[in-house]
Amino acid sequence: MDNANTPYSPTNPRTVDFVVEPEWILPIEPAGLLLTGHALAVRDGRIEALLPTDQMRAQFSCRETFRLPGQLLMPGLVNLHCHSAMSLLRGYADDLPLMRWLQERIWPAEGALAGKEFVATGSKLAALEMLRGGTTCVNDMYFFPEETAKAMAGIGMRATLGMIVIDFPTAYAQSGDDYLAKGLQTRDDYADNALLSFCLAPHAPYTVSDPLLQRISELSAQLDVPIHIHMHETEQEIADEVVRTGMRPVDRLDRLGIIGPRTIAVHAVHLSDTEMALLARRGAHLAHCPTSNLKLGSGIANVPAWERHGITWGLGTDGAASNNRLDAWQELRHAALLAKGRSHDASALTAHRVLSAATLGGAKALGLDSKIGSLLPGKAADMIAVRLDEWIYQPCYDPVSHLVYVTGREQVSHVWVAGELLMANGVLSCANLTEVLAEAEFWRQKLLQL
Amino acid sequence: MDNANTPYSPTNPRTVDFVVEPEWILPIEPAGLLLTGHALAVRDGRIEALLPTDQMRAQFSCRETFRLPGQLLMPGLVNLHCHSAMSLLRGYADDLPLMRWLQERIWPAEGALAGKEFVATGSKLAALEMLRGGTTCVNDMYFFPEETAKAMAGIGMRATLGMIVIDFPTAYAQSGDDYLAKGLQTRDDYADNALLSFCLAPHAPYTVSDPLLQRISELSAQLDVPIHIHMHETEQEIADEVVRTGMRPVDRLDRLGIIGPRTIAVHAVHLSDTEMALLARRGAHLAHCPTSNLKLGSGIANVPAWERHGITWGLGTDGAASNNRLDAWQELRHAALLAKGRSHDASALTAHRVLSAATLGGAKALGLDSKIGSLLPGKAADMIAVRLDEWIYQPCYDPVSHLVYVTGREQVSHVWVAGELLMANGVLSCANLTEVLAEAEFWRQKLLQL
Repeated sequence: MDNANTPYSPTNPRTVDFVVEPEWILPIEPAGLLLTGHALAVRDGRIEALLPTDQMRAQFSCRETFRLPGQLLMPGLVNLHCHSAMSLLRGYADDLPLMRWLQERIWPAEGALAGKEFVATGSKLAALEMLRGGTTCVNDMYFFPEETAKAMAGIGMRATLGMIVIDFPTAYAQSGDDYLAKGLQTRDDYADNALLSFCLAPHAPYTVSDPLLQRISELSAQLDVPIHIHMHETEQEIADEVVRTGMRPVDRLDRLGIIGPRTIAVHAVHLSDTEMALLARRGAHLAHCPTSNLKLGSGIANVPAWERHGITWGLGTDGAASNNRLDAWQELRHAALLAKGRSHDASALTAHRVLSAATLGGAKALGLDSKIGSLLPGKAADMIAVRLDEWIYQPCYDPVSHLVYVTGREQVSHVWVAGELLMANGVLSCANLTEVLAEAEFWRQKLLQL
Repeated sequence: MDNANTPYSPTNPRTVDFVVEPEWILPIEPAGLLLTGHALAVRDGRIEALLPTDQMRAQFSCRETFRLPGQLLMPGLVNLHCHSAMSLLRGYADDLPLMRWLQERIWPAEGALAGKEFVATGSKLAALEMLRGGTTCVNDMYFFPEETAKAMAGIGMRATLGMIVIDFPTAYAQSGDDYLAKGLQTRDDYADNALLSFCLAPHAPYTVSDPLLQRISELSAQLDVPIHIHMHETEQEIADEVVRTGMRPVDRLDRLGIIGPRTIAVHAVHLSDTEMALLARRGAHLAHCPTSNLKLGSGIANVPAWERHGITWGLGTDGAASNNRLDAWQELRHAALLAKGRSHDASALTAHRVLSAATLGGAKALGLDSKIGSLLPGKAADMIAVRLDEWIYQPCYDPVSHLVYVTGREQVSHVWVAGELLMANGVLSCANLTEVLAEAEFWRQKLLQL
């Protein structure tokens, strides 16, 4: 970053807040384009212009210039499925079969500790981990979403909060009505916050009853908010639902009006061709969580088939208890690699395609693609700069390929959300890290005492 | 590192070169053990003692102490399959079907440029990348192994060099006899180097004739050196071999005496149960390259079945052209995750097991397990320290689990090979990095001009 001697002094200039001059710009839209010799201008939190650098210098004056040689500017990454507060359970229970993991470790821990304060700390820790790695927007689902909303608003990260609904009482709420009322109240409380939006978040087909799902489907249409739901994560869950209801989960959800253009169905590891065709026809979106699906032994989603069906999808980390990193770069790489390994086709899911899914795909799923997901003028300046010049990444022939197959999250140097600089040169400036870590240590000690 | 005020002044002490006092020690042998409050002493390049810290301080005097709070000491990682020189082709050709990748990009580039100087530069670059990430020993296969030997010897990395044999002429050699003669000469030239050993490296069943394979089998027994060979990487390769010879590759190799206790068969993505039983019976070893197998669309090896058969295996990165990182931590994580995802069992291949494969497993496959692969007194001091105290890795409940599911290679802080400190606090001291990068840039420019 160099703002000592800005050369931006044209006659009759248009004024902007700052200009970024990186080595490369990957705007994501138009698809496949990689620019060099370009600069991007930001005013009032939005992208004002994306122009060849000499034209930018001739037309604009700015208060600050970020000269970033060896770096690539791109949209911030969208984490389409996370349970942020579970960052406090990172590595708390690994290498266990799914049901023992849940029943013996995760649920008892959550039952004992997952109140407001736990969610507040876990959400902050997760937000900082995600921002450090270039994730600028998260779609979250957890109890006490008001605490996650507060944490995200305080830090300045963009988030969609799940108004969670689950058909049994917890420390957060007592009944379906109670869950919905609390979620909707939180939505009202943050109606004025431009960085926060809300989803209806029925946990999963097997934890939410027909009447509740029907009500959620109606609310989604009335309020025009997305529905965020786990679906077809494991074969067992599907088989159980067939025994219980006579239907596969996706068919039951469709009958109840849950499957539509506002739907974000998470995991979708096991889908028939007919089911994919249905999802495509309904305009539903999928959240692919490749690492979590491997780690919990769920399997490998057939993403090349999703692509053939024209389904829009994004990438999610899931919670840190089943990953164990909230690292969008790991998900990018896993998505590209697993698509190739599963289909036995090394050309499946190219670097450009997976980067588009991780940005614009996630934005579309959240209904936020008019605001974020690409570097089109008019969109919010949610963007990141990535160093491609460190020695261990050399040689570099194709920066886009390097982003997917080589880059680590530690290479992210700058992060802006709505034009606010939250990290520069790898150093976060948006929270008191020491305080958050002290809180996290408090909860770690609590968990060790269980 | 703190050696200003060593407390090691017992009466009648035994003298050692240095002592490491980390937070944790993961010795790999005995299996599953994680020590705290222990220290490790090194003398003349070997591990002299591993004791509770107070006993160490009472019994030994030393010239240097490495106090490493928040860090874990473990054996250096063994990369059981690499083409080091191909680091210069990192990201040169991605997202292409295997045959186009080879025929249109990799082979023409190698044909035009892969001479002695190319191999020298590529090997140095690869060695530095591997050491930075905690890999202390590599099993290599490429043309001009004398250049890779020279690079590794100069840097001080432990390596097993493949005496490559392939049934067509290249810039390196003209005939099977020529390949063998050159490889054996290189082996003789480095006979006195304690860090270097040699393998016979017939490239693959489909590129080496029966008589040559038979000769290699005999040489392996006479000289007591391992055989390093690609095997059953793709379904196509197996089908082609059946058409050509009437046999599956592993059966043909077995008939020719190649499959035995000195064998390192690489990839083994597609193996029947009978074939695994044969490999186990013969005492052959496998090199698992999970990332490369995904990226080239080869598939996912059935490692949990290898384990059931009791086959010894280690982890390999393959070359940087098909990975694109020479990063042992990525392979560790992918091995653990893919085993779970493929078998639909979240308890498959635990963190302890995969760490053992990546260290002791690789050492056994190379016939070097009396020297390296665990922190037993008497073995060479090939070891690494890993930071587990950075904020982005918090909280940490189980350091072993964190190594596999959370750690990035940038967390490796110290690297020793045979007691020589090659990296401290993440800074390599074993080569002129600027010079190596300038050479790498020279070759990048050459490749861009092709």
